[in-house]
Amino acid sequence: MQTSLNEAAKMLLAADDIHILSHQYPDGDTLGSACALCHALRQLGKRAVIRCSDSIHPKYQFLFVGLADEQFEPKFVVSVDIADTQLFGDGIASYIGRVDLCLDHHGSNAYYANYTYVDSSAAATTEVIYDLLPLLGLTADRTIANCIYTGITTDTGCFRYTNATPRTYRIAADMMETGINAADINRLMFDTKSRARLEIERHVIDSMRFFFDDKCAVISVTKDMIEQSGANEGDIEGLASLPRQVEGVLVGITMREKCDGTFKLSLRTEKAINASAICARFGGGGHPTAAGCTIKGGLESAEKQILDAVGDYLRAQDEIPG
Amino acid sequence: MQTSLNEAAKMLLAADDIHILSHQYPDGDTLGSACALCHALRQLGKRAVIRCSDSIHPKYQFLFVGLADEQFEPKFVVSVDIADTQLFGDGIASYIGRVDLCLDHHGSNAYYANYTYVDSSAAATTEVIYDLLPLLGLTADRTIANCIYTGITTDTGCFRYTNATPRTYRIAADMMETGINAADINRLMFDTKSRARLEIERHVIDSMRFFFDDKCAVISVTKDMIEQSGANEGDIEGLASLPRQVEGVLVGITMREKCDGTFKLSLRTEKAINASAICARFGGGGHPTAAGCTIKGGLESAEKQILDAVGDYLRAQDEIPG
Repeated sequence: MQTSLNEAAKMLLAADDIHILSHQYPDGDTLGSACALCHALRQLGKRAVIRCSDSIHPKYQFLFVGLADEQFEPKFVVSVDIADTQLFGDGIASYIGRVDLCLDHHGSNAYYANYTYVDSSAAATTEVIYDLLPLLGLTADRTIANCIYTGITTDTGCFRYTNATPRTYRIAADMMETGINAADINRLMFDTKSRARLEIERHVIDSMRFFFDDKCAVISVTKDMIEQSGANEGDIEGLASLPRQVEGVLVGITMREKCDGTFKLSLRTEKAINASAICARFGGGGHPTAAGCTIKGGLESAEKQILDAVGDYLRAQDEIPG
Repeated sequence: MQTSLNEAAKMLLAADDIHILSHQYPDGDTLGSACALCHALRQLGKRAVIRCSDSIHPKYQFLFVGLADEQFEPKFVVSVDIADTQLFGDGIASYIGRVDLCLDHHGSNAYYANYTYVDSSAAATTEVIYDLLPLLGLTADRTIANCIYTGITTDTGCFRYTNATPRTYRIAADMMETGINAADINRLMFDTKSRARLEIERHVIDSMRFFFDDKCAVISVTKDMIEQSGANEGDIEGLASLPRQVEGVLVGITMREKCDGTFKLSLRTEKAINASAICARFGGGGHPTAAGCTIKGGLESAEKQILDAVGDYLRAQDEIPG
């Protein structure tokens, strides 16, 4: 059932022995939200701990300082930034059906909790926590501000994405006034890459080729590259944005080899080109400037097919000669 | 002579036929400031144009929309974001000694103009222009807001650097409320790289080697690499930050070959390591986490010397076994 933030605050004020849930493959927003809420609840004298299916990347450890874990049976369960139960992960799947309150910013929230508060205008769930604090009678101190800022900066790609609103910037400003070091947080979140990430980038950039008057760039991410570099899923994240970053490229294509040898293709395009329409030819889809599809057959065959489709599209748009 | 922003506004209100100067190798802040001021002065019915020694990168062209150039003799000259006359560049050197007003945010400003207003707490000179607008009786419209936001985001590295203050974020929020597309601006400024940049990065990442339990990473930027990739100075900018971005690296070293075959070294370090102290051994210096020096001799000799110095430092700090 949908609830107001005011009602959500009342539930939390009345609760104790609280388990806070973060989603699997945890990112800065789900962890920032969980830690901010956990700090807040402990400041109110309550027992509260965080549960997450997956291990926490070391770069997020600073959010947990002062939040020593405790073992106790939960009397109240609150999930943060988890849009659907598939995102719980095996480690906390036992909480499915037992969530009292869900705080989220995903418009796609599945309303799996007893009570759900979603603010889909918020760039990050930590914006929701920011709004919640005064309703709990609290003001963000530096510890909580670190968490809230981290959620905002990670979910907006350091204030780059379209989801960052004037309000997002103003909340960030308020958090900085508590004395947090925003530059340090951003460096930790965005300017650090693993050796494996460096290696896979090296392979992927080496694989980049250009077509159609350099208006289309293609990279491949093969099983061999992943194995050689020791890259995990986190290391591979965001590689698909590389080809379209090159000046003059209208269509960036990333060909990722799957276990069964098929290729999953990700297209990133300039606004004038509809990535979703191109992927639809192969039964795929997505957004106008970011879409995907799967093409059977080996690398060469898959590449030929997608390049044919891109060529047709560019010719139809008069981007290349007919 | 130092002046107040109020006095500066009065001078501008009294002036006409104004030339606005940007610094050489123009960046988003000097151009954002010049364009914001030029739009503002034209809104006041004045003749105003922008002069810059160097050509403007196409990515900044959107700032100039509606600012058709005109030829006229200046009756008033105002420089923006130019800390010293060396930064005028040959193309506008004739203005040296003729600058009526300088608006800037560099604490190092040389006070070369008749009147100078510096706000060194501002992350960008466009923050100064933001403060100036109401004194001119104006409010930022979307056109001016594009310019002010661009200066802020480029000078703060997209809100990443320590110079971004709560006020910076709040000005950005105000600018966004005029309806500008901040995400588009950030993509244009930060997510686009030239083919030459891609090529030089490819070479440079290939050259990366690790020392001292992977706590030190070294890249080289040779004359050959620059030639092969067709990179210009702009393409090379920021490469020095690459080695230190790798997880676990405390000291990142960039060895740039100069025309005479000597190597200019740039060190980027984690806070625990004093880059400036290491560079001082070779007569160099800089900041605690970003410093440089020049070492004579070829690549191998220069590398051996700097690695010896880094090794000594790391051993003294117990970062590596003695």
